[in-house]
Amino acid sequence: MKHVINFSAGPSILPKTVFEQASQAVLDFNGMGLSILEISHRSSQFVAVMEEANALVRELIGLPEDYEVLFLTGGASTQFFMTVMNLLPEGKKAAYVDTGSWSAKAIKEAKILGSIDVIASSKEDNYTHIPKGYSVGSDYVFLHTTSNNTIYGTQYQSWPDSPVPMVCDMSSDIFSRPIDIDRFGLIYAGAQKNLGPAGVTLVIVKKDMLGKINRELPTMLKYETHINGKSMFNTPPVFPIYVSMLTMRWLKEQGGLAAIEEVNKRKADKLYSVIDEIPFYIGHSVPEDRSRMNVTFNLADASLNDPFRKFCEEAGCSGLKGHKSVGGFRASIYNAMPETGVDTLAEIMKAFALKHA
Amino acid sequence: MKHVINFSAGPSILPKTVFEQASQAVLDFNGMGLSILEISHRSSQFVAVMEEANALVRELIGLPEDYEVLFLTGGASTQFFMTVMNLLPEGKKAAYVDTGSWSAKAIKEAKILGSIDVIASSKEDNYTHIPKGYSVGSDYVFLHTTSNNTIYGTQYQSWPDSPVPMVCDMSSDIFSRPIDIDRFGLIYAGAQKNLGPAGVTLVIVKKDMLGKINRELPTMLKYETHINGKSMFNTPPVFPIYVSMLTMRWLKEQGGLAAIEEVNKRKADKLYSVIDEIPFYIGHSVPEDRSRMNVTFNLADASLNDPFRKFCEEAGCSGLKGHKSVGGFRASIYNAMPETGVDTLAEIMKAFALKHA
Repeated sequence: MKHVINFSAGPSILPKTVFEQASQAVLDFNGMGLSILEISHRSSQFVAVMEEANALVRELIGLPEDYEVLFLTGGASTQFFMTVMNLLPEGKKAAYVDTGSWSAKAIKEAKILGSIDVIASSKEDNYTHIPKGYSVGSDYVFLHTTSNNTIYGTQYQSWPDSPVPMVCDMSSDIFSRPIDIDRFGLIYAGAQKNLGPAGVTLVIVKKDMLGKINRELPTMLKYETHINGKSMFNTPPVFPIYVSMLTMRWLKEQGGLAAIEEVNKRKADKLYSVIDEIPFYIGHSVPEDRSRMNVTFNLADASLNDPFRKFCEEAGCSGLKGHKSVGGFRASIYNAMPETGVDTLAEIMKAFALKHA
Repeated sequence: MKHVINFSAGPSILPKTVFEQASQAVLDFNGMGLSILEISHRSSQFVAVMEEANALVRELIGLPEDYEVLFLTGGASTQFFMTVMNLLPEGKKAAYVDTGSWSAKAIKEAKILGSIDVIASSKEDNYTHIPKGYSVGSDYVFLHTTSNNTIYGTQYQSWPDSPVPMVCDMSSDIFSRPIDIDRFGLIYAGAQKNLGPAGVTLVIVKKDMLGKINRELPTMLKYETHINGKSMFNTPPVFPIYVSMLTMRWLKEQGGLAAIEEVNKRKADKLYSVIDEIPFYIGHSVPEDRSRMNVTFNLADASLNDPFRKFCEEAGCSGLKGHKSVGGFRASIYNAMPETGVDTLAEIMKAFALKHA
């Protein structure tokens, strides 16, 4: 099997041991003589998977009793409107901070259904930083933030002072560091970065955020439906949930969120050091808001983009092409990216710069 | 590996070769050196999967050009309201036929958002048959039906005369027989029976059904979003779509829908023959509406339920427990159930009846 180091922004790298266990379960799950793909979601074997997945989320975060954990579908894109439908009563307002394309999409959907204010934005600077120095009124129902901006490579390294609970899209950095849970009324995350494969969405909601709206919603769009149904009101995405559970088991074995944060810091520092030391590379984000998940950079000489990409590919590094909004390159170094993978890329960057100096 | 014959109602049996290919792709997809679980949905390799899945749906059904094929999430339960949101203008009505629990759920969701009439129901007979002899007014926007009723073991063997297009939940019998497509304005199906694993929902929609409503919907809830995005407006459920594509490839190799229909008829006939010949077993459905996917029956002597279940399990037959609404037993014999599996169950039923005669 070819050796490839996967720097894709998402769906993205997961631990190798997870692939091995998942592959085996597709043939024979737990020695049942059945594939994980053909068992009933009501079987005791799958109920155990769902319960373990739920318990692992609780344990990894250290989740207080008054929060619920849900495994849904539809991605963060569905949470953009479900949050507003379920949390924002008519006549009330929510505040949004715009830190990139995904924030902007959340804002667009919120405006369809509710009344919101965009209280801060770094759009005019092509989202090179996280806005700061704004204040949040206490009359808002919630403050919506996007913790990590995959496209721009920025990330909140400290949270805004907010008198109201935050609703946060953590799709691209959930479980990469401890979560200061008391700040959050609701957290959502598409699985396909640190949590698991595409096809499942994690929602963590504080119970007192719910029950405040009067509008009648379709059953599937109410968080209460999925709380009461323990994420099995209807057939859940069995395999994506199973693989997410395996990935969380792996994360627990690594020592949990505080331990993985240290590794993630080291990994990001290695790449940012190259960017800071070699003027050949230009980082997109301002240093204080740099993402530890997505390292975005351009080459000072854009005519070298194609040769650099080829150089990386020949060394087995894939998925490095930057998003068109930023151009250049993006190294996504999620939890499952081994430090050796980052070391390889750092060496490549140095070697290429030397070659073309 | 233990040999188990899986009669589960869903998620349910898929072809063995599909499990083998899917298991391999979790380790190394197409020799890329990457797992199918870690590749970008925008990669040329996954775009090829999505295109092949789409083309296979079109080819298997013989779909005219003016229909679109979508791979969504959220199951049939989400389609219960998306259909009404997208197809039923204010001031207009739709007609529903109630043939079981899933129809009833569709009706409940439709009533939240629109104005509908339930024009026929077999609820009073505990859904032992498909209603007939009603007429459908031409002022309805659509007629909603549920083609196969997993719980009760009934199935439309002929379609009602309808002057308006049908919207049909085919979750539990799609691709089990040819589809008389001209009758349908929209077909939806959770994948987890004949189509693939849990986590993806197929929607087939005729273009002229759309564009007739004025209400502003969240982007993710509009069929147009997913038509324009080729089912990739946001990250799709990569692995469930891949396995569905493999399952459709397998179905094409079996000769397609007309060929599998013949096999399904033979399989169902074998079990219904046992039920008809041995008064020890009592079928739930009236003979003319019997499902070829879910064979539901009770034992004449209910005190033998537990011994029968044990007898089946010892012979390697699993998933036979009937739904609580009907009791007794249910043998789900979807496309991927080999005829030899049905033969085994028929022999078991005969042997058990003889033993306890």
